[in-house]
Amino acid sequence: MFSVTVRDHMMIAHSFQGEVFGPAQRLHGATFVVDATFRRPDLDDDGIVVDIGRATEQLRAVLGELTYRNLDDEPAFAGLNTTTEVLARTVADRLVQRIEAGDLGVGARGLTGITVTLHESHIAWASYDRAL
Amino acid sequence: MFSVTVRDHMMIAHSFQGEVFGPAQRLHGATFVVDATFRRPDLDDDGIVVDIGRATEQLRAVLGELTYRNLDDEPAFAGLNTTTEVLARTVADRLVQRIEAGDLGVGARGLTGITVTLHESHIAWASYDRAL
Amino acid sequence: MFSVTVRDHMMIAHSFQGEVFGPAQRLHGATFVVDATFRRPDLDDDGIVVDIGRATEQLRAVLGELTYRNLDDEPAFAGLNTTTEVLARTVADRLVQRIEAGDLGVGARGLTGITVTLHESHIAWASYDRAL
Amino acid sequence: MFSVTVRDHMMIAHSFQGEVFGPAQRLHGATFVVDATFRRPDLDDDGIVVDIGRATEQLRAVLGELTYRNLDDEPAFAGLNTTTEVLARTVADRLVQRIEAGDLGVGARGLTGITVTLHESHIAWASYDRAL
Amino acid sequence: MFSVTVRDHMMIAHSFQGEVFGPAQRLHGATFVVDATFRRPDLDDDGIVVDIGRATEQLRAVLGELTYRNLDDEPAFAGLNTTTEVLARTVADRLVQRIEAGDLGVGARGLTGITVTLHESHIAWASYDRAL
Amino acid sequence: MFSVTVRDHMMIAHSFQGEVFGPAQRLHGATFVVDATFRRPDLDDDGIVVDIGRATEQLRAVLGELTYRNLDDEPAFAGLNTTTEVLARTVADRLVQRIEAGDLGVGARGLTGITVTLHESHIAWASYDRAL
Repeated sequence: MFSVTVRDHMMIAHSFQGEVFGPAQRLHGATFVVDATFRRPDLDDDGIVVDIGRATEQLRAVLGELTYRNLDDEPAFAGLNTTTEVLARTVADRLVQRIEAGDLGVGARGLTGITVTLHESHIAWASYDRAL
Repeated sequence: MFSVTVRDHMMIAHSFQGEVFGPAQRLHGATFVVDATFRRPDLDDDGIVVDIGRATEQLRAVLGELTYRNLDDEPAFAGLNTTTEVLARTVADRLVQRIEAGDLGVGARGLTGITVTLHESHIAWASYDRAL
Repeated sequence: MFSVTVRDHMMIAHSFQGEVFGPAQRLHGATFVVDATFRRPDLDDDGIVVDIGRATEQLRAVLGELTYRNLDDEPAFAGLNTTTEVLARTVADRLVQRIEAGDLGVGARGLTGITVTLHESHIAWASYDRAL
Repeated sequence: MFSVTVRDHMMIAHSFQGEVFGPAQRLHGATFVVDATFRRPDLDDDGIVVDIGRATEQLRAVLGELTYRNLDDEPAFAGLNTTTEVLARTVADRLVQRIEAGDLGVGARGLTGITVTLHESHIAWASYDRAL
Repeated sequence: MFSVTVRDHMMIAHSFQGEVFGPAQRLHGATFVVDATFRRPDLDDDGIVVDIGRATEQLRAVLGELTYRNLDDEPAFAGLNTTTEVLARTVADRLVQRIEAGDLGVGARGLTGITVTLHESHIAWASYDRAL
Repeated sequence: MFSVTVRDHMMIAHSFQGEVFGPAQRLHGATFVVDATFRRPDLDDDGIVVDIGRATEQLRAVLGELTYRNLDDEPAFAGLNTTTEVLARTVADRLVQRIEAGDLGVGARGLTGITVTLHESHIAWASYDRAL
């Protein structure tokens, strides 16, 4: 199995509902350093998993919809806690939509899996992994 | 599949038995930067894999039983080489005991796997991965 | 010259005033990974720059006054942009107050300088350096 | 499952064929920081996955065949794009040949899998994973 | 003293003249992860050292003149070894030219120093530091 | 001013005398990731600060005198706490002795300063800086 990973980041504000979150129930924020990993069992004719330039652009586009925002005000997350885990799934699912729409090129149709990891600090991170 | 990882560290002395270890047969030591990864297929009602505060506390408690010690003197490791691999398994198994004892909360009962990685330097690390 | 550095982090929300900030004028947030460096020309009788346990506690205390908050609502920053640079100075100045109050121990009176670095992402950070 | 990873690096020149590569069609170069991960379900009698000293030596030997070279001139890669993905597979396959030749010791016969990750920058890396 | 640092990278081919360089006399390459640090004693009216967006853009522009090239063919380096040290100075000097040309904005006129660090691997880097 | 830094590591056991050290008064250990920085105002005729190959070898030699040992048993440290700060000075001073003995080559005579940083964990490190 082959994989390629690209890294970018976003900077958001949010708050959480639920006693389990303690002081994180207050409005606060996070930088998420985001790693998007694309997987496939074989390489394409160019010897790559995916066009890394396009992968980088599409990850930037997905994060561009979230960064520099207060996620508490985003309709897409109404009624949801925007935990690191939930945001990892959101970024992964939106990348999959773009792959399926052809935004990563025809070669990206050979992808079989994706993992998105969000680093919220130097001591904590979360991942979401799914098939395509 | 979702995962959450928290990082902490411990600083121990030890020595190894066996020619394969070369100069590491002498009493020496290590800082282990420890990553504990908790996995489950779905999120709980709060949108999380595990209460990250409790996960951090329990990892600290497990490492607190090992850090600032000479592991050659610990009865738990009598007759064992406390290699990075063996210590990764020890930390993972002790975390599982705490999960099963309810120390990470009732939500942690949904966990299906755990991976513990010990970084012994900037150029070497070892992991142990198990199901729950 | 000797120095010791300890690392911790904080997670805050804020917004900026001024066209130079572009989209960061919107309410957003950041994780700041914070490095506090303590300097002195000679070591004390124990062979240290500062009690690293106390340095860690005091850095945590200073960051505890800021983390999990919306800095736009904090009176201490009224009329100020809480840029990474400004926050680095704030953390440094508050650590100096604690050093002068004796919170880092009598040995800390030998300190001659401090540098605080705030990492706002994997590609940007800011520092403030001052004498004691 | 247990794993051990060792890190080293190589510094090579190369160019790519194919419009997808854009400016990387020109002769350029890369530092690849290389992580080689060795896996097995159980530890050997010494409590290890593999002799980490030998693993380090063999990784260095494999990278020594590639580093400080222009890969466009290497017969082994004639007609191939030496992408990060292709080089990850090359390093992994060459390590497997050495394992099978006994270069990592008899204990290495218990290995069941290997993953090689090549970091081409702080924001991009690729992996190849295979069974033994 | 305040500073702000931004990070980017370039990927180049080159070779060195001189026995001291050993195998690096052959055509090879490197990824340089580049940190550009801008310094000034006081903040501007916006509470910043420099417009970080412009600093990022200008660093990218400077690296864009070098990346994806064989530096042995660049007239700017004729007769020079493009060592990590020499390239750090080149990047710093070109950033200073852009600061003096106003490309980082009028606020950048308050800058008093710059440091450029090029990381050539996980175990080696070089810096050049100069006044403005 | 130019500088070049090389990184290596050592793994030692030790204990400390003094109440300030708390649990670190017990025999324990550490991995120190060691960065040695060499400085000079101008480059030599090859365009370098120092022969990086020799610098790496000499750092390895200095660390080879310390690694895989219990520093409590080393005569060189009798009556001294081998704190991170003290060890940073020891490594720096031993590197300077080697520079003065010509072990880094005649070009190294142009060096004017050295800094040694020892990382004891992902959240703590110490440095010693001196002139030559």
